[in-house]
Amino acid sequence: MKILVQKFGGSSVADVERIKRVAERVVSYRKKGFSLVVVVSALGDTTDDLIALSEQITNAPPAREMDMLLSTGEQISCALLAMAIEKLRVRAISFTGAQVGIQTDKIHTKAKILDISGDRIRQALNEGKVVIVAGFQGVNADQDITTLGRGGSDLTAVALAKALHADLCEIYTDVEGVYTTDPRIVSNAKKLKSITYDEMLEMASLGAQVMQARSIEVAKKFDIPIHVRSSFNQEEGTMILKEADKMEDFVISGVTLNRNEAKITICDVLDKPGIAAKLFKEIAKNGVNVDTIVQNVSRTGTTDVSFTVPLADLSKAKGLMQVFTKKIKAGRIIEDRDIARVSIVGVGMKTHTGVAAKMFEALAEKKINIDMITTSEISISCIIKKKNAEKAVRSIHAKFGLG
Amino acid sequence: MKILVQKFGGSSVADVERIKRVAERVVSYRKKGFSLVVVVSALGDTTDDLIALSEQITNAPPAREMDMLLSTGEQISCALLAMAIEKLRVRAISFTGAQVGIQTDKIHTKAKILDISGDRIRQALNEGKVVIVAGFQGVNADQDITTLGRGGSDLTAVALAKALHADLCEIYTDVEGVYTTDPRIVSNAKKLKSITYDEMLEMASLGAQVMQARSIEVAKKFDIPIHVRSSFNQEEGTMILKEADKMEDFVISGVTLNRNEAKITICDVLDKPGIAAKLFKEIAKNGVNVDTIVQNVSRTGTTDVSFTVPLADLSKAKGLMQVFTKKIKAGRIIEDRDIARVSIVGVGMKTHTGVAAKMFEALAEKKINIDMITTSEISISCIIKKKNAEKAVRSIHAKFGLG
Repeated sequence: MKILVQKFGGSSVADVERIKRVAERVVSYRKKGFSLVVVVSALGDTTDDLIALSEQITNAPPAREMDMLLSTGEQISCALLAMAIEKLRVRAISFTGAQVGIQTDKIHTKAKILDISGDRIRQALNEGKVVIVAGFQGVNADQDITTLGRGGSDLTAVALAKALHADLCEIYTDVEGVYTTDPRIVSNAKKLKSITYDEMLEMASLGAQVMQARSIEVAKKFDIPIHVRSSFNQEEGTMILKEADKMEDFVISGVTLNRNEAKITICDVLDKPGIAAKLFKEIAKNGVNVDTIVQNVSRTGTTDVSFTVPLADLSKAKGLMQVFTKKIKAGRIIEDRDIARVSIVGVGMKTHTGVAAKMFEALAEKKINIDMITTSEISISCIIKKKNAEKAVRSIHAKFGLG
Repeated sequence: MKILVQKFGGSSVADVERIKRVAERVVSYRKKGFSLVVVVSALGDTTDDLIALSEQITNAPPAREMDMLLSTGEQISCALLAMAIEKLRVRAISFTGAQVGIQTDKIHTKAKILDISGDRIRQALNEGKVVIVAGFQGVNADQDITTLGRGGSDLTAVALAKALHADLCEIYTDVEGVYTTDPRIVSNAKKLKSITYDEMLEMASLGAQVMQARSIEVAKKFDIPIHVRSSFNQEEGTMILKEADKMEDFVISGVTLNRNEAKITICDVLDKPGIAAKLFKEIAKNGVNVDTIVQNVSRTGTTDVSFTVPLADLSKAKGLMQVFTKKIKAGRIIEDRDIARVSIVGVGMKTHTGVAAKMFEALAEKKINIDMITTSEISISCIIKKKNAEKAVRSIHAKFGLG
C-alpha cells in the first residue's frame, strides 16, 4: 500500500471547523487506499499565545521549559484531529514526537533530528489506522521534549516521509502552491506546476515563506517528492522535485522580495589580508546571519565594507561592530534600514546567458538604482531602496514573461 | 534534607500573577532548606476549555485521545511555573508524568497508578533543583499518555510523596483547610486543626470537595501526613493524619451536605431472595454508583425499594430500571430530584452513644422530616427535602457545638 505523508499547517487547523474539514480530506485519501501519516501544526495562533504567556513570566525563559510549553500546541491539534477522523468512522491514533521516536540533539528550541524509529507508526499503519503525529517536536537522549524551530512541522513531515519510505509528502497550506512571485504584489503571478529543490531553497532563503528551508534540504538529500498545495480546495499545487523530473523549463522560476534586511557599512577599513575574515567571524560567532557582502577594490589603502543582516539582528550586529571597529581602527559605521532585496531564481540561468543583464535592464527602465548585487549559481539578487521594491518586482516579473 | 511535596490546584495557578506567587512561595521553602517536588494542575479552566473543544468535534471522543488532549493542560502549567521559579534565580526543572515514570494501567481517563520510578526526580533533587511535575497524568506500558480522573493531581502528589519517602505532602487550594461544615452555609463554621484519613474519606465521599477521595485512601494506606492549606495566605490549614496523631478529639468533626443526588423508588417488588441482588448488579455493571439503599420489611409479599444515585446518572438509572421492572414484573418507578443528603462525620461516634439521636433531634427541632437514613462506622446520613438542606446543616452544626 502506498504511504502518503500529509502535513497541515496552523492555518489549516485554525479552528474546529477547519479540523473537521481536514479530517474529511484525510478520510477521502484513506478511502482511496493510501496508508496515511498526518503531521499537524498547532491550532492557528496557539504557539504565539503560549509564547506570550511565557513572556509575561520572564524575558529569558529556559529553552528546555520553552520546548515543554510550546510542544503542547501540536499535541492538542493531533488529539483533536484523531477525534475528528474517528468521528467519521475511520480508525485513527495520535502520537507525540517522543512516542514515535523522533530523536533529536539537545539544542532546545531548534533541535536537529538525529533519527526516527517509526516502529509505532508502522505498527499502527499495519493495523489500518490513520496515524496523526504532532509536528515540530522530538525528544532528546534525556527524554526531554525538544522543538525543531519555526516551521518545524514541515521538517517532521519530510523526515517521516524519509523514515517510512513514503511515496509522496504533501504540504497543505493557506496558499495554492509556489508562485512566480507574491500575488499580492503582481496580480498576474502564476502558480508553478513544478520547481526544483534548489530553486525552492533559494526562494525560501530569499523571502518566500511557503516552506521551511531545512525541510527542503532534507527532501533534496533523500529525493522525496513534495506537493505544496492548499487545504481549502482540491486544486493541484506545486511539485518540488529534482531537476530531472521538472515538467516545465523556464529560464527563471520566480521573483522574490525580502524587506526584512538592513545594511551596515564600515568605513575606512585597512585593506590588508585577514581583516574581513576577522570581521565576519566576530559576527558569526554571535549568531548573526550575514547575507550579502560587498567590498570594493581599494585605491587608497582603506576600503568600505558593506553587508546586510536581518532587521531583527541589526542592533546586535551594530553593537558588535562598534567594538570591532575600535579594535581595528576603522572609521564610522553607517546603518541603512531603507533597503529591499529583489531576487530572481531559476535553474535555467545556469545555461542561459544574459539573465543578469535582463534583470538590471528591468530595473533601469523604471529608473531604479541598484545598491548592491550578489549572485549564486541559480539566483541573482539586487539590493535597492525599499520604496522601489514592488515596482521592481513587477518590472522584473513582466520582463521575464512570467505572468 | 527533608523532602516536601507541594501540590497547587487549578485556582492556585489560574493566571500568570498567581503562578508568580506560587513561585515565590516555592522559593521561600527552598530557601528554608527543603528538597521540593511541586505538583501542578492545569491553569484555571484549561481542562474545561479543552473538553469543550473536543465536544465541538464529537460527543464520543476516544478515551486515549482525550488523555492526549487533557494532559497538555498540566504540561503548560508546569513549564510556566519552572520558568517563574528560574526567574527568581532558583534552579527548577519541569517534567511530564511520563518523564518521571508515573506508570499506570491502561484505563484511559481514569487510570490507576501502578508504580513510580522517580529516578529522574531524585537526580534533579540531588542537583539542587526544584522539581515541577505535571499532575493528573501518567503513562501506560504502551507509552500512551493516561490521566487519573478528576482531582487526579492530588493523587499524583500523594503517590510521589510515597515514592520519594517525603516528610510531608502539602495540598494548596482555594480554601483554608477542612471546615466543620461549608462556611457559605454556616457562618461560624470552624477550620479543623486536624482530621483523620477516615473522616476525610467520609467527608470527601459525602460531598466535601477539598481533596480527591482516592488520594486520601493512598495517603492512609502509606501513612503520609497531608497538610491542606490555602495558597493565598500563610495560615496553617488542616492536617490529615492517622487517628493516633490527631490533636483534637471531638465526637464529630463535621457536617456535610450533598445536593447532587436523586432518589428512585421501584414499587411493588416481589419480596423474594435474589431480586435486590439482581437489581443492583444490573445498575453496577452499567457504571452507575448507587449510594443509600432502603428497603422496608414486607407485609404483603411485595415491597418498595428506594435508592439514591448521582443526579448525573439519574436518567441512565431510570432507563435501566424501566427494562428491569418489566422483567421482574414490578410496579411503577418514582423519581425524586428534590432531595439532599446531610451527614455527620467523626471517629468519635464509634465510642460515643446517642450521636444519631442527637442528630435526629436537631432535625426534629426544625420540623424537618427524614426520608431515608444510612450509617457507616464513622458517619450518619439523612436524606431530606432539598429546601430544608441548609436549615438542617445549621441546626446540626449548632447542636454538636461545632461553631
